[in-house]
Amino acid sequence: MNIATPTTVAWVGGPPGRVRLLDQTRLPLETHHIEVDTVQGMVDAIRRLAVRGAPAIGVAAAWGVLLGLQHGLQYGVERAGVERDGVERAGVERDGARLAELLRTTCADLAAARPTAINLFWALERMQNHGLARLAAGADGRQLFDALLQEAQTIHDEDVRQCRRMGELGEPFVPDGAAILTHCNAGALATGGMGTALAPIYVAKERGKNVAVYADETRPLLQGARLTAWELQQAGVAVTLITDGMAARVMSEGLVRAVFVGSDRVAANGDVCNKIGTLGVAVLARHFGLPFYVVAPTSTFDPRVPNGARIPIEERPAEEVSEGFGRRTAPRGVAVYNPAFDVTPAELVTAIITEVGVLERPDRVGVDRLLRERGHLALPVA
Amino acid sequence: MNIATPTTVAWVGGPPGRVRLLDQTRLPLETHHIEVDTVQGMVDAIRRLAVRGAPAIGVAAAWGVLLGLQHGLQYGVERAGVERDGVERAGVERDGARLAELLRTTCADLAAARPTAINLFWALERMQNHGLARLAAGADGRQLFDALLQEAQTIHDEDVRQCRRMGELGEPFVPDGAAILTHCNAGALATGGMGTALAPIYVAKERGKNVAVYADETRPLLQGARLTAWELQQAGVAVTLITDGMAARVMSEGLVRAVFVGSDRVAANGDVCNKIGTLGVAVLARHFGLPFYVVAPTSTFDPRVPNGARIPIEERPAEEVSEGFGRRTAPRGVAVYNPAFDVTPAELVTAIITEVGVLERPDRVGVDRLLRERGHLALPVA
Repeated sequence: MNIATPTTVAWVGGPPGRVRLLDQTRLPLETHHIEVDTVQGMVDAIRRLAVRGAPAIGVAAAWGVLLGLQHGLQYGVERAGVERDGVERAGVERDGARLAELLRTTCADLAAARPTAINLFWALERMQNHGLARLAAGADGRQLFDALLQEAQTIHDEDVRQCRRMGELGEPFVPDGAAILTHCNAGALATGGMGTALAPIYVAKERGKNVAVYADETRPLLQGARLTAWELQQAGVAVTLITDGMAARVMSEGLVRAVFVGSDRVAANGDVCNKIGTLGVAVLARHFGLPFYVVAPTSTFDPRVPNGARIPIEERPAEEVSEGFGRRTAPRGVAVYNPAFDVTPAELVTAIITEVGVLERPDRVGVDRLLRERGHLALPVA
Repeated sequence: MNIATPTTVAWVGGPPGRVRLLDQTRLPLETHHIEVDTVQGMVDAIRRLAVRGAPAIGVAAAWGVLLGLQHGLQYGVERAGVERDGVERAGVERDGARLAELLRTTCADLAAARPTAINLFWALERMQNHGLARLAAGADGRQLFDALLQEAQTIHDEDVRQCRRMGELGEPFVPDGAAILTHCNAGALATGGMGTALAPIYVAKERGKNVAVYADETRPLLQGARLTAWELQQAGVAVTLITDGMAARVMSEGLVRAVFVGSDRVAANGDVCNKIGTLGVAVLARHFGLPFYVVAPTSTFDPRVPNGARIPIEERPAEEVSEGFGRRTAPRGVAVYNPAFDVTPAELVTAIITEVGVLERPDRVGVDRLLRERGHLALPVA
């Protein structure tokens, strides 16, 4: 039996093309989709977390590049009193410098949406490099668009396959007849496929294991309560919701046997940046003798950042903490600290499960070897 | 300069007497008081957390005994068409067995309000024992009431003095020019006086130290955001609000130098039961090399419970987690686990600061010695 998971991001053909997003801010009470047709619309969607999760942001941004191109090329754009003629106009745009500038500007605008998840920059860099190579080979606007449409589709398809591969590689670590703990949402909603941290759970369920999940609600934005609980429930996986502060008790009572989380960026030494609260869960797992697994594709690795302390951590508005649920729950004027991510040092990580293999006791040497296998270091080093 | 802290519980004279409570469910947006004049009203107030915090519950329950007595004795109770005559009626009730039964029933009703905080049972046992001794000596209803009015006042006065004493004994452990972390609310709002965990902070501020506090918001009921942030702000102490999952990052960044928490019950071996999430903070403090201080009066110790595993842990309704902010934030039908407390093993506790002394590295021998000094073991052993 194959698990059915929701579709988080999809390209809707054109011209003009649009990106269809499952609006995650309205889950779990409403399953509402939005269609985005401009770069600014995609930046807004990423920024307000309508689409979130490192791999999903990467996929969405790749599609977002097409939105910028078609606008810049007036590709499929109707203007007052003029028949839709973008295809022809795009076809005739042959100024390589202008096309390169359009591509760079589009990628830069999308890259400014959020600072921490590396998949965003990875996908944009891949799109930009691919486009610049085509331009160097003499592509016109139409050919550039078609080549990048294909590249975005490849990024998306790879994400789907990589999720399943991580699920298969991680499945042996999922206990049968016992529960695991997860933090935030690193499921289908966080990717173009079946998820990262939740993929091994889904595969284990497909293979007939008796699986169950304790989900940290994950304040301030409750991705665990709103998204993880929802998608596991949809998939028929037993899920119990707890507040973040209950994870220690759940572990002390022996209710979970392992921890699975995703990542927004893995540094060259194996330090893992992920949703705020992950570090605490990792320390608890170590204290209670539980394995702590990180599930992330190699596109989440950032070999240019030597360690976790160098990863930029997004700080988000105070109101997410003080008015997180539409009403004020803290006194006016109180200071709030609201970092969206934290860094778990590599020594607290039992293994990082990637699409190219399982890296146990991650360190600089292991990460380097893993990325060489993947050919990742072919990327230009900034 | 003396810190001004709010009054959580107060007896309002009669007859009929009432207990005035600062309704903590309406903080921080409204400072609203309620007056309770029946045992059931007090049980409801404790159960819905209008008054909460182990020492404050003890004080409120002591006063609650008077509400039961005056009702049973029709002390000050006006009846239709009859002049207020309770004083005389109370004076003439001389049936010792009936008075003892009234006292026992009242205490049992109050004891059923919540299961975990031992101060509730401690205060009620003290009231009951005092009353039964007076009855054995031939007291009539009026004399019983007056004796217990005096005993409740003594319990309340002792709590005020003990809070300040804990503040003085704990103050040397408060770093100057650095912040501490606290969880839940163990301040003035949790006691009849200036608090337990926050008392050393208040005394340090009075003595001119530069103090600051990071307050865990403390899901599900946000006592940190609603109560601790509010009372520290009122007292002019610098406070920064974080979600519970941010404590690890705050520690990893070196933003706090110690942890101070209260307790709902300390077992004979020094295990500390406190608000859910405390165990996680204790594990983190150990991992990051920070001292973890518990501040609790000896009335919070329960020598009859050998260790933390034997302390009954209240489980509260799922909706506190899934609809904690007046709107649903989790999918319908999702399972929720909502224990209100957890247990921190004694070995994670740097010291327990009580009104009779500081117990470093608490264990069975140390707890026993502390309680002997306090004469606590004079209590009957169940």
